[in-house]
Amino acid sequence: MPETDKPTPRTRVVREPERGVYHRDEVYGILDEGFICHVGFVADGQPFVIPTSYGRKDDHLYIHGSAASRMLRRIDDGIPVCITVTLLDGIVLARSIFNHSMNYRSVVVLGTAMVVEDPDEKLGALRLLSEHILPGRWENARKPIEKELKATSVLRLPITEFSAKVRKGPPIDDEADYVYPVWAGVLPLEVVPQTAINDPRMDPMREVPPYVKNYSRKK
Amino acid sequence: MPETDKPTPRTRVVREPERGVYHRDEVYGILDEGFICHVGFVADGQPFVIPTSYGRKDDHLYIHGSAASRMLRRIDDGIPVCITVTLLDGIVLARSIFNHSMNYRSVVVLGTAMVVEDPDEKLGALRLLSEHILPGRWENARKPIEKELKATSVLRLPITEFSAKVRKGPPIDDEADYVYPVWAGVLPLEVVPQTAINDPRMDPMREVPPYVKNYSRKK
Repeated sequence: MPETDKPTPRTRVVREPERGVYHRDEVYGILDEGFICHVGFVADGQPFVIPTSYGRKDDHLYIHGSAASRMLRRIDDGIPVCITVTLLDGIVLARSIFNHSMNYRSVVVLGTAMVVEDPDEKLGALRLLSEHILPGRWENARKPIEKELKATSVLRLPITEFSAKVRKGPPIDDEADYVYPVWAGVLPLEVVPQTAINDPRMDPMREVPPYVKNYSRKK
Repeated sequence: MPETDKPTPRTRVVREPERGVYHRDEVYGILDEGFICHVGFVADGQPFVIPTSYGRKDDHLYIHGSAASRMLRRIDDGIPVCITVTLLDGIVLARSIFNHSMNYRSVVVLGTAMVVEDPDEKLGALRLLSEHILPGRWENARKPIEKELKATSVLRLPITEFSAKVRKGPPIDDEADYVYPVWAGVLPLEVVPQTAINDPRMDPMREVPPYVKNYSRKK
């Protein structure tokens, strides 16, 4: 049985409650398939939403960026954040405009992100971020040096207050609309890797590594 | 010449300023290619980030949802929002881990969203949202009726304070790293529509319409 965490009043799915998901393993499956999140934070009463990459280790999310960035500078001060990950699976075409929808899986994690100070945890988190996006790359590339580590901040957010919202399957129309004479169904959307493009400054004889050639987010 | 708006201190791209884009036509090109945004708002000091669809008409963004939803209820009160649209174009593999990056185009719009009260503007905005996601669908499907319009809120956000951030092209490595013996380049990512799936409750002889069969976000 998967572990189920209780949503808080802030994370309980209020609209379409049947779409709410609170099982950690299902939430982690969504987090592990995506690699771009949208981080929300507040500065002078104004919300900001910034896209960035992330990694997960156990019950923690890690994000990183320049130590100088607006977002990380603010988060460093200890203000609350919201990290949202959205996987878009398709467009749902119903008979009525009103019942049109999307198939999607999204996760919201609320909490306070803390700067990772410990050098070992920081390097480990950078490796995690790299391997989360592109498994196999870390060992191939030039590792970070002291100067680069200093220029990078890493933040840790515990996954304690969270929920997911998932819609899948065909459209759901009002009973009376099923006779309406229009095509209905789902247009699935998929993020598909295209042919890798060599850096023009690289020896063109160098082969594309398997972790690029066979890239897939599916586990 | 494209119109250039001045960024404010809140929207000026501070990190990697060469990636900042303030031309309205380029920003609108990004907004028109995407159709999922992440809306940030604040409730009791906590930021929330929620994915939703949107449409653009001239210098305004429109979002919609149930009149009862947490997000729209809050926004209705007149609190500030941030609407962020992110298009992910590829993973950038440099020789050094530090210089790895993403190719992306993202737009941030700050402001206060207002509820659309005028019935004609509201219906027009719903048509706009529908046609933004799936051009051609509105005329085919059953249009909204009074009860459905009442259950839906539409919000309008003027595009006045905004900026985009764009990265494209090959990796940029430190000069000394170009001799490092590893593959470098870009793995392009594309959102690709898959074969449409018939609603099992629909007459299977009904043909998939061209706006579904030939779906593309590219203009």
